[in-house]
Formats: sequence, C-alpha cells, structure tokens
Amino acid sequence: MTRLTLAEAHELAADILRHAGFSAAFVQAIAATVTAGERDGCTSHGLWRLLGIVRTLKSGKAVADAEPEVFEPAPALVRVDAHGGFSQLAFAAGLPLLAEKARRNGIAAMAINRCVHFSALWVEMEALTELGLVALACNPTQAYVAPTGGSRPLFGTNPIAFGWPRPGGQPFVFDFATSAVARGEIELHRRSGKPLPSGWGVDRQGRPSDDAAEVLDHGAMLTFGEHKGSALSAMIELIAGPLIGDLTSVESAAFDAGHNALPYHGELIIALDPQRFLGEQADAQLARAETLFEAIQGQGARLPSQRRYAARAKSLVEGVEIADSLYQDLIALRG
Amino acid sequence: MTRLTLAEAHELAADILRHAGFSAAFVQAIAATVTAGERDGCTSHGLWRLLGIVRTLKSGKAVADAEPEVFEPAPALVRVDAHGGFSQLAFAAGLPLLAEKARRNGIAAMAINRCVHFSALWVEMEALTELGLVALACNPTQAYVAPTGGSRPLFGTNPIAFGWPRPGGQPFVFDFATSAVARGEIELHRRSGKPLPSGWGVDRQGRPSDDAAEVLDHGAMLTFGEHKGSALSAMIELIAGPLIGDLTSVESAAFDAGHNALPYHGELIIALDPQRFLGEQADAQLARAETLFEAIQGQGARLPSQRRYAARAKSLVEGVEIADSLYQDLIALRG
Repeated sequence: MTRLTLAEAHELAADILRHAGFSAAFVQAIAATVTAGERDGCTSHGLWRLLGIVRTLKSGKAVADAEPEVFEPAPALVRVDAHGGFSQLAFAAGLPLLAEKARRNGIAAMAINRCVHFSALWVEMEALTELGLVALACNPTQAYVAPTGGSRPLFGTNPIAFGWPRPGGQPFVFDFATSAVARGEIELHRRSGKPLPSGWGVDRQGRPSDDAAEVLDHGAMLTFGEHKGSALSAMIELIAGPLIGDLTSVESAAFDAGHNALPYHGELIIALDPQRFLGEQADAQLARAETLFEAIQGQGARLPSQRRYAARAKSLVEGVEIADSLYQDLIALRG
Repeated sequence: MTRLTLAEAHELAADILRHAGFSAAFVQAIAATVTAGERDGCTSHGLWRLLGIVRTLKSGKAVADAEPEVFEPAPALVRVDAHGGFSQLAFAAGLPLLAEKARRNGIAAMAINRCVHFSALWVEMEALTELGLVALACNPTQAYVAPTGGSRPLFGTNPIAFGWPRPGGQPFVFDFATSAVARGEIELHRRSGKPLPSGWGVDRQGRPSDDAAEVLDHGAMLTFGEHKGSALSAMIELIAGPLIGDLTSVESAAFDAGHNALPYHGELIIALDPQRFLGEQADAQLARAETLFEAIQGQGARLPSQRRYAARAKSLVEGVEIADSLYQDLIALRG
C-alpha cells in the first residue's frame, strides 16, 4: 500500500487531470471530489475513479473545457446545461440560484442536463445541507438492471440521495444505488468464480441466477427490495429522465455505444428550506429531528453517514492508503 | 361472501359514517375513499377500514366535523391544518392551491398537519396526475418498525407514493409501505401459528426472529430492503415530521396512548409540473416515458398500478364481494 496525505492525493489527482487536458476549473473541481471520496473511504469514488475519468475523456464522451450554462425555466426551477462536461462544475454553477430559489419559495428544483456524471451524490447533499437546506437527488446511469419480473437491462443503478442539516454537527446524509449491489461486486464474483447471493441478478430468461457471467453478459442485475426498489428505480428514470428532458438509462447506454465511458445523463435535485416551512418554529422542530437520531443510535443502529464520517476523521489525521498497483497506474497517467 | 354494487358499497359506507356522527363533508369524502379502496382490491383501505374509522372517532382521537384551514407559508408552499379531522378534506382543501403553485413555480409542496390519516396515498397521487402533475407523497404512521441494526419500534410503516400522468391512459402510480410487510400480515401469522419469513422482524435483542408474537409484543418489525429501506423510512420521519412541524411515528404512538386509533400525524406532498420543466418539449418528452413503460411491460414485468387497475375494471362491472362476517359487522355499525 502507498500512503498519501490528502494534499498529496489532491495534487496527484490535479496533475492527472491537467495532463489529460481538463480546463483549470475542472481540474480543481474533479480533484476535490475524488480526494473527498478517497478521504471518506468511498474507494469507488476515490482516486481509482480517475482511470475512468481519463478513459471517458479519451473516448470523446466528455468535454474537457465545458462551461455550464444556467437557466431559469420557472420561479422555483433552475436548469443547468453542463454542455457535456463532468457534473461538478454544473452543480457548482447552479447551486447558488437553487439555494436562493429554495429560500424564496420554500422548495425549488434543479435539473442538470447533458452531463457526464461520476460524482457521488453525497457530496452534493453536503453542499446543500451546509446552506441549511434539506435536499434530495437522483439520477439514472446506464441500463444494467431489470425491473422486477423482467429479464433484460432497463434501469441504471440509479442512485438516490438525501441530506438533512444538523445544527452544529455533520448532516444526516444517505446515498445509495437502487440496484441490489454495485456492478463491480458482481464483476468480483465473476473473477473469483464465486456464486452470487440470491437477489442480485437474473439469467436471460428472467430466472434467479447465481452465475455472475450469465447475469452480466446475458441476463440483468436486480434492484434492492424487490418490487419496491424496482418502483423507485422506475421513478428515478422518469423524474431524472423525461421530466428534465434528458436520457433514460437505456438511452445513456446507447449513447455510450460500448465505449465503457462514465455515464452521460441528467440529474434532478430538490431543495427544501426548513425556515420557510416552519418559520420561527424552525429551531425547535429541527431539535426534534435530533431526538430521532438519538433514538436510532441509542438502540445500536447506525446513521447512514457514520461510516463515512469516521473514515474522514481518520484520513484527516493519517492520510489515505491506496494499493501500490493503483498508485503505479495513477503515476503513469500523470505524464 | 356478500356482493355489493359500488353504489351500494358507497351508500353503506355513507350510512355508517353518518350514524357515527361525521359531518356531511366527511361522510362523502371518506365513503368515496373506502369505496375506491374496495373497488381497487385494496381491502385494507376498503370497507373493512370503516371499523377503524368509527373506533377512532369513538376513542376521541378524531374530530367529526373538523374544517381544514389553508395557509401559504411561502410562494411554493401550502400548509393545511386538518384540525384533527381525517385526511380527505384536508387534501381536497389544499389541492387547488398546490396545483396552482406547482404550475406557477414548476414545483410546490403541501404539508398537511394535525390530521387523522387513513387514506391510501395512491388516491391522492391519482388526483394530482389527473391535473397533469407529477407527484410524490409520504407520511409517518405509528412506531412499529426498528431501524436496521436496532431492536425497538421507532419508525412507522411509513408509506411513500409517486404518480406520473400518462396522456390518454391511467397514470403510473406506486404506493408502498417502507416496512417489509404490513403489520396485519404479521398478525395473521400469529393467529395461525406460522413462522415468519426472514426479514420481517426482530426479537427484543434485535436478532432476526420468526416468532410473530415476539416481534409484535417485544421486538419490532423491519423495513423492506435492509439498510436502504431503513434510510428511506428515516427520511420520511424527517420530511413528513419535523420539517412540517408534525409528529414522528414515536410521537404519534404516544398520542394514541394505546387506543389503537388510526394514526394522527402529518403528510408531505410534492408536485412538479412537467410543462414548466419542459416547455414546448413537454409532449415529446412525456412520450419518451411511454417508451419506458412499454419496455417494462414488453419484458413481462408489471407496472406497479396494473393489479389495482385490473381490479377496478372488474369491480365497475361486477361490483365487490366482502366476507359475510364483515358485512354483518358493517350492518351493525349502520345503526
């Protein structure tokens, strides 16, 4: 393993992104996200992700110097055209207006369009909770997942995320895929020849399958939570696809055309302002949420973001460790 | 079994509600909902529910002639104080303003407060999709469900519902509890002495349990989808509890104080207007949603509302059938 301070990790990421040809704004924004992912123990959104980011740019599926454009289609709506760039700059470009609209109207939504999206949604949820807003976000990805009762890839891994600001503490944030597991987990089972646990995938006939190769190459992954998870995944296709005039996961896969680039699609973010819902009661009501969190933790259950915050606290002191082989791959990309 | 036409079912419900002392407006509104539930094969929201409604009124936990009051806390927010009445009138009172605000702003939210809530959320989703709006709703109930990793009731069965309008057809609507199953399912296992399937509940130590009595009396129910369902259930507690200044499921259970009344709490509804998101592209984009629905059904999977619509079509022709024992119980309530 190779140990890096967070500053070293950020510098390495920035060097790679600069060498790949990203504009200065993207270099800073993407380096910040992958460093945050590594710091928080989300390795799939950490430094490893740089390999996919550079591959996506080289395949012509991302614009290295895109400048996002912000529109106001309605009093409580923001639309950001990412112009084919990665998500971070589009999100950052729209965030101030989204927050302003949520504060003015009580609730507001932001659609990000034509975006190469690799960023973890929890990063965005943290940005919104830092502004005192409650937030919800979701996006399609690329078609890997069958609806319950089906047999063919139709939905993406379709993440959904939520953030709730906590006075004086780290926010309550969750961010999970609506697929039963990440596609990478099934890849690992293929490599090791291990049978899949039940509920992860189906074969080409739509029957439950424990054969990773069959699921990946001919069948499909499944959603979490059977028909309920499948319904949520369909909702995400709709509200972060047609509702915002952007691609579904099937259309995103067609756009990729086998390049294995990071998925190109839209995202929907909803922000709600507790101050406008509650007025002068806001502080007292938000304190009642703290009672709920205490009751969750008081019976030995975990808040969804605790593992990430623990990793963060550790990384801030000790830095991060990555596999030597990954470090060598990254050094090679630095040019 | 006793067969009733829908008109007879509605009349029976209205007679019972009138005899119980509900105001004329509640008689009509609640009779319409329970008849719709029976018609659509949702027996738990059908005529059977009248027993709980009358019990709730008699226990002093509902106001028979409440008049909901509508407020505008912010340009995109509606708040309805149900003043202790059942949900239907509160929803109906706020609906026009919610729709107007969604159309004006692109997105709007409605909080219903101090409400006895027994209505199925899909009824509300249908009302919003009929107006061409996309809708999302959720509410806490009473504490029966432990968070993943916990051992004690904290969350309610916390339903979440979604509606998407379909041009010229019945809307895409789902409405499900975030508990693994309905509490009534576990009651049935207790009565028949059958062991519970895994994932339904835990014992007092938080260990998986197949003992219905232990789960109901000492342990807790579980959410669907393990930690992901648990996270969603926590979100519902927050956004339909403290965010709207209303009770969490634990607080609602305390309010009930063992009366076994229908739960008293709030509800959050979000409405989005595709016309404001999409402008002149709206028709073309909504047509792309139809492509998604065809792809779901084309691979043999079901849309979440199909079973209900099939039951509806049948009931409109044939009426509904209820158990003779239930019919006798209802006749006795008619006075």
